[in-house]
Amino acid sequence: MELDDSKHIKSTMDAAVLTEVKNIEIQKREIPTPEADEVLIRIKTVGLCGSDVHYYEHGKIGDYIVENPIILGHEASGEIVKVGEKVTELKVGQRVSIEPGATCGKCDHCKEGRYNLCPHVEFLATPPYDGAFCEYIAMRADLVFPIPDSMSYETAALIEPFSVGIHAISRGKLQSGETVVIMGMGPIGLVTAAAAKMAGAKTIIGVDLEQSRLDVAKEMGATHTINLREDNLDDKVMEYTNGVGVDLAIETAGNPKAVQGTITSVRRGGRVVIVGMSPQDEVPVSISKIVDKEIDLMGVFRYHHTYPKAIEMLASKEIDIEKMITNQYQLSDAKEAFEKAIHDKTNTLKMMIYP
Amino acid sequence: MELDDSKHIKSTMDAAVLTEVKNIEIQKREIPTPEADEVLIRIKTVGLCGSDVHYYEHGKIGDYIVENPIILGHEASGEIVKVGEKVTELKVGQRVSIEPGATCGKCDHCKEGRYNLCPHVEFLATPPYDGAFCEYIAMRADLVFPIPDSMSYETAALIEPFSVGIHAISRGKLQSGETVVIMGMGPIGLVTAAAAKMAGAKTIIGVDLEQSRLDVAKEMGATHTINLREDNLDDKVMEYTNGVGVDLAIETAGNPKAVQGTITSVRRGGRVVIVGMSPQDEVPVSISKIVDKEIDLMGVFRYHHTYPKAIEMLASKEIDIEKMITNQYQLSDAKEAFEKAIHDKTNTLKMMIYP
Amino acid sequence: MELDDSKHIKSTMDAAVLTEVKNIEIQKREIPTPEADEVLIRIKTVGLCGSDVHYYEHGKIGDYIVENPIILGHEASGEIVKVGEKVTELKVGQRVSIEPGATCGKCDHCKEGRYNLCPHVEFLATPPYDGAFCEYIAMRADLVFPIPDSMSYETAALIEPFSVGIHAISRGKLQSGETVVIMGMGPIGLVTAAAAKMAGAKTIIGVDLEQSRLDVAKEMGATHTINLREDNLDDKVMEYTNGVGVDLAIETAGNPKAVQGTITSVRRGGRVVIVGMSPQDEVPVSISKIVDKEIDLMGVFRYHHTYPKAIEMLASKEIDIEKMITNQYQLSDAKEAFEKAIHDKTNTLKMMIYP
Amino acid sequence: MELDDSKHIKSTMDAAVLTEVKNIEIQKREIPTPEADEVLIRIKTVGLCGSDVHYYEHGKIGDYIVENPIILGHEASGEIVKVGEKVTELKVGQRVSIEPGATCGKCDHCKEGRYNLCPHVEFLATPPYDGAFCEYIAMRADLVFPIPDSMSYETAALIEPFSVGIHAISRGKLQSGETVVIMGMGPIGLVTAAAAKMAGAKTIIGVDLEQSRLDVAKEMGATHTINLREDNLDDKVMEYTNGVGVDLAIETAGNPKAVQGTITSVRRGGRVVIVGMSPQDEVPVSISKIVDKEIDLMGVFRYHHTYPKAIEMLASKEIDIEKMITNQYQLSDAKEAFEKAIHDKTNTLKMMIYP
Repeated sequence: MELDDSKHIKSTMDAAVLTEVKNIEIQKREIPTPEADEVLIRIKTVGLCGSDVHYYEHGKIGDYIVENPIILGHEASGEIVKVGEKVTELKVGQRVSIEPGATCGKCDHCKEGRYNLCPHVEFLATPPYDGAFCEYIAMRADLVFPIPDSMSYETAALIEPFSVGIHAISRGKLQSGETVVIMGMGPIGLVTAAAAKMAGAKTIIGVDLEQSRLDVAKEMGATHTINLREDNLDDKVMEYTNGVGVDLAIETAGNPKAVQGTITSVRRGGRVVIVGMSPQDEVPVSISKIVDKEIDLMGVFRYHHTYPKAIEMLASKEIDIEKMITNQYQLSDAKEAFEKAIHDKTNTLKMMIYP
Repeated sequence: MELDDSKHIKSTMDAAVLTEVKNIEIQKREIPTPEADEVLIRIKTVGLCGSDVHYYEHGKIGDYIVENPIILGHEASGEIVKVGEKVTELKVGQRVSIEPGATCGKCDHCKEGRYNLCPHVEFLATPPYDGAFCEYIAMRADLVFPIPDSMSYETAALIEPFSVGIHAISRGKLQSGETVVIMGMGPIGLVTAAAAKMAGAKTIIGVDLEQSRLDVAKEMGATHTINLREDNLDDKVMEYTNGVGVDLAIETAGNPKAVQGTITSVRRGGRVVIVGMSPQDEVPVSISKIVDKEIDLMGVFRYHHTYPKAIEMLASKEIDIEKMITNQYQLSDAKEAFEKAIHDKTNTLKMMIYP
Repeated sequence: MELDDSKHIKSTMDAAVLTEVKNIEIQKREIPTPEADEVLIRIKTVGLCGSDVHYYEHGKIGDYIVENPIILGHEASGEIVKVGEKVTELKVGQRVSIEPGATCGKCDHCKEGRYNLCPHVEFLATPPYDGAFCEYIAMRADLVFPIPDSMSYETAALIEPFSVGIHAISRGKLQSGETVVIMGMGPIGLVTAAAAKMAGAKTIIGVDLEQSRLDVAKEMGATHTINLREDNLDDKVMEYTNGVGVDLAIETAGNPKAVQGTITSVRRGGRVVIVGMSPQDEVPVSISKIVDKEIDLMGVFRYHHTYPKAIEMLASKEIDIEKMITNQYQLSDAKEAFEKAIHDKTNTLKMMIYP
Repeated sequence: MELDDSKHIKSTMDAAVLTEVKNIEIQKREIPTPEADEVLIRIKTVGLCGSDVHYYEHGKIGDYIVENPIILGHEASGEIVKVGEKVTELKVGQRVSIEPGATCGKCDHCKEGRYNLCPHVEFLATPPYDGAFCEYIAMRADLVFPIPDSMSYETAALIEPFSVGIHAISRGKLQSGETVVIMGMGPIGLVTAAAAKMAGAKTIIGVDLEQSRLDVAKEMGATHTINLREDNLDDKVMEYTNGVGVDLAIETAGNPKAVQGTITSVRRGGRVVIVGMSPQDEVPVSISKIVDKEIDLMGVFRYHHTYPKAIEMLASKEIDIEKMITNQYQLSDAKEAFEKAIHDKTNTLKMMIYP
C-alpha cells in the first residue's frame, strides 16, 4: 500500500529477511495493505526469541522447516497507522502490543478456549508466515491490544514472552502464598518468575548455571536462587521449603536434568509444568515418583487469552520487566544481533530490535 | 493444672466470662490440662470479632444460643507453655497462631477437604465451647501454627479473620491481573482486600458508607474506593472497569443491597462470593441476571487449611495488616471493649484484647 | 439461489413467518445462497421451543423484541444440499444437526471458550435473525454436525435442547455416583435428567406438578419423582438421600418456589444450577443458607461446544430421547402447533415441525 | 477378645501369615478387641491383589519391606460382630465393605482432602500393619461402610480396587461422551473400564496382550479392544477416534511401552493418568509431545473418599463387576492361591479368599 509517513509518501519498507541458514539481508518489501478486519502497524520494537535464533542457525524447529526466505520476529509492539474498514475498536495513533498467532476461531480447540492448540494458526515468524523484523505489518484487529501511555514499547513487546509465563503459572494453578521452583533463568524462566511473583507466590527459587542470570532473577521476583555449579538442587530446595518440597516446579530450560529436577523437588501432591522443549525427544522420567507423589504434570504450548491481563499486570510496574533487556540493535544490524545471541550466551538475555 | 509461670506456681487464671446478655465478668478458672495430643498456650492477643459482639448483645447467632456462661474470643495468638506427651512437632516457648475450630477428621466433609463444613466441629467461643478471652487455653496440636520471630502477636491473631479473606478469594478463583469489587470495608472486607492484593488483583474496589473505613481500605490494597453516600455503585464500577464490570464481586457487608450490588457490578461470565450473613434470611436476588450473565455465586463459611499459607503471606509484610487495629484493651477491660464496639461503630475497626 | 431439488429447479421456499403477535403465515422466501464458508441445508425437523412460543404470544423476551416479521425455530436438523467453496469437511448428502448460534470467535468470551456469552452472536430465531421454520437455511460450516445413519432427524433436532442439559450438568460439575434433583419436568428438565443419567448420576429426582410429565421423566432417567401436588419437596428429597440432601440441584422450571427449593434440598457443600428464567426478575433467596451450607450456585445460559459430545451420547441410545415428543405438525400447520402449545400445556411436551 | 460366635465362645482365630518369602502358614491369633471408635468385623471375602503377590514373592515393594511375619490382604468385606462404645452409626449384624487405610486426619494432605497422601497412614497389609487374610479384624468405624442387602460380599470386597478406577477417572476429569483408552486389562484396568463406562464415556478402548483379558474387558464396559500381539496401538486408537486420538489415556499395566502409548494415543489437549508402577524407575517419555500437545499427566496413588460413591455405583448393577473373578479359595488354601497367581497369569484375573 501507499503510505504517507513522516511527510513523504512511501509504498515499500525495509525487512530483515532470512535468505538461507545463517544469512539475513535487509530487503525492500511492499508495505502490506490491511484487510477490512485488520490494522496496519508501524513496528517500533521487536524482541529476539530463542526460536528466531534456532531458525537462523538450523533452518527448522521440529516439523517447521524454512523452505523459502522468511522474515523472523514475533515479539512486537508498534503504532497503528491505518485501520481496516470494519475495525471499530481501534484507531490510528494507538500504541499497541501484538499477539502473533491468528487462530481460526472454529476448530474444537478454539471453541474450547484453548486456541493455542488450533491446528490452523498462522503465527508470525513460523514458516511459512512472515514475522515482524520489518517496518510494517498488517494484523487482525482482535490480536492488537492498546497499551497505556505509561508503558514503553519495550515492555509492550515483552508482553509476548511474559504471556508464556502467565500461562505457565495458570496451567500450574499457582495460588498466592505458595512455593515455586523455576528451572532455567533465561528469558522464559525470568518472565515466569515475574508472573509467579505478581500472582503472590512467596518463595520463588530460580535455578541456573550462570550467576549473571541468577542476579537478574532477583530483580524479576526470585526470592532464592540456586547456582547448579555450586549447589545441589534437591538439597537447596528442601532447605528453602522446610524439607517439604515446592508446591509447583516449572521447567523452562529445555534440559533433561531440569525435567528430572522438577520431579524430585516438588512436594507430595504437587504440580509440575513443562515449558522447555528438550533437544532430545525422550527424557528418562521417574514414573514411580509421579505415581507415589501423585504429581500433576502439565505441558505448556504458547498461551491463550493472556494479553489484556498481561497488560494490566505489567502496567502496575510491580516488576520492571525491562531489566532483562541486555542488548539493543537497529533493524539494519539484525544479523549482528543473531550472531551475538549464538556466540555470547553468557552475556545476553533479552535482545531487542528497533525497525 | 499447676503451672510454674514467671517463677511462681499457679493453678488458676483470669477469664472474661459472658454471664448473661450484656454482662462480662472477670472470673477465676482452672488452667486447663492439655491432653496427650494438645498443647497449653499462654494467650497473648485476641481480636474482638463481630460474632463475639453479637453473642454479647443478643445471646445467640441463629441456632447457636448461649445457654450457660461462656468465654468469648476466637482470634488468638500466644506462646506454648506445655506440650502433651504425644506432641512431637511443637515445643515450649514457640510463638503461635491458633486455628479455633477442632474438626472431626472423619465425616464426609473432613474427608473431602472441606472441614469447615464438619458438623462435629468444636469452635472456640461458639456455644457451648469456651473461647480465648482468658490467660490459657489447651488446643489440639494440629491447630497450632508457629509464627516467624518477625511477626507480632497482633498479626498472628489477625491470621484468623485473614483466613476468611483468603478463603473468599480462593472460592472466587481470583487470578492475578483481575478486577475485584468488595462490598463492606469492615474488618472482613479489609482482610479480603489485602488477600486480593497479595494474589495479584490489579483493580480492587472497596465499597462502604464510611469514609474512615475507605481510608483504611487504601492501606489494605484497595486501588479504588466508592463511598455510597456520594456515588452510585454501578456507575463507578463501570467507570473503573472500562464498562465491562468486575471479574469477581465479594459481599462482606451482610446487607441485602450489597448482595444485589454484586450481581449488577460483575461482568458477564464473572463470579460472586457471599461472605456476609444478612440480618434478614431472604434477599431478593435477580435470578434472570444470574442466568443471563451465567454468573457463578459461591457462599463462604469460615475457611479451611489456610493457616500455613496465611502465615507465609503476612510474613512478607507486603501489607501491614495491623493498620486495621483501632483499639486495644486489657482483659480486665473486656466489657468496656464490647460496649465501645456496639456504640462507636464509626471509629472502631479491629479491636484487640490482651490477657 | 436456484436449486435442483427432486428433479425440478426451484428458487423459492415456504417459510412460517411470525407477521405479528399470535399470527403465523406461510410465505414464499428466496432460498438463501450459502457464503463460501457456509452450507445450504434442507430442513427436515425442527423442535418447537418455549422461547418460540413466548415470541409468538408476547412478541418479545426481555430486551429481545420482534420488530419485523421473523421466522422462528432453532432446534433443527436436515440434509446438506450445497456446500460453499471453502468448506472442506462437509459434503452434499450428509445428514446433520445444526447449532443455531453463530458467534464471533474474537471477543473475550469466545477466546475464553465461553462463546455462549458472545455479545455478537447471531442466533436463529432471536430477533432480528430468522430461524428454521422453513425449507432451507444457510449455516456456517462449523455449526453443522454430521450425525450417524442410525440417528433420526428427530433426535438430531433434539441435540439443541439436550445441549442445555449437558451444559447444566457440566456447570454443576456432576460426577458419577452422585445424587441430583431437577425442578420442572418440561423438555429442558427432561433432557437434563437424561444428561445426568448418562453421566452416571445414581439418584435422579424429577419434580413437577403434572403426573404425565413425571411419567415421562421415568423414561428419561429419573430414578425417583416428586409430585408437588401430593408431596413436600424437602421431605421427599431427604427421604431419597438418607437425610443428607442432594449433591446437585438444578432449576429448569422458571419458578421462584423452584429456585428456593434448590437451596433447601441441596446438601451442605452442594451445588445449585439455575437454567430457568423466572417471569419475575427478583426472587427471594436465602443468602444465609447459601453461606451456611457454602453452596455453589451457577447460572446457565444456553451452552458451548456440546454438539460432538451430545451426538456421541445420543447415538448410544442409552436413553431414547424421542419419547418426549408428544406432537408432530407439517410446516403449513405451524400456527396450529403454537396454539396447541399455549392452550394445552398438560398434554404437550416437545412438539416437532416438519418443513 | 472373647467372642460368642455360632453358639460357642472363642478367643482365637485363624490367620494366613506370611512367615518368610514364598511361605504362608495358617496360625492361631488372638481375636482383636475393638477400641472405643472401632468395630470388630467377621471377614467374609478378601480379594488377592497384585501387591499381596509381590510381597509374597519378593518380601518388599519399594521402601516397604516385610521384616516380621505379616498377614496380607486388604480388599475385604464382612459382617460387624461388635461395636466400640463410642460408635453410633454402625451396629452389629451390618454387612460392610472395608476401606483399608487409616489416615491421621491432621496432616496437610488430610486437611486438603487428599488423605491418600497422608504419611502417617496405617494401611492393611502394608508392612508393618497386618491385613485381612484372617477371620476377624478391628477397624476404625469411619472406614467401615454398610452395603445394601442386594450386594454380595464379593462385590463389597471389590469396592477397594474399584475405588482405584474411580479415582483414576476423577483425576483424569473424565466427562460423559468422551473417549478413553486404558492400557492393561488386569484387574485395575478392568475396574477402570467399568468406572469409565458408568461415568458416561462413550468410546472405551481396552488394550492388552492376552485375548482372555480383552474378552472380560468387553463385559466391564470396553466398547473396543486392541490386542497388541495383533495390532498397532496408535493405528487402532486413531481408527476408533476418527483420527483425533482419545480424550483420556490411562496406564494401568506398569509397563514403559504402555506409558509411552498414552502419550502417543491421546489427542492434542488431552489428559493422561498413570496408575501402574513400572518395575524400572525411569521411563523414557516424550517431553516434546507433552509440550506440543499440551498434555495434562496425572499420577494416581490409591484413592480418597470413594467408598460411598463406589457403593452407589456398584449397587446399580449397571456392570456386574464379579465377572472378573476367576478363582476362589478357602483361607486354608491361601498359599495355593498365591502360587496360582504367580504361575498362571494367563488364566487368573481376580482371585478371592474366604476366611
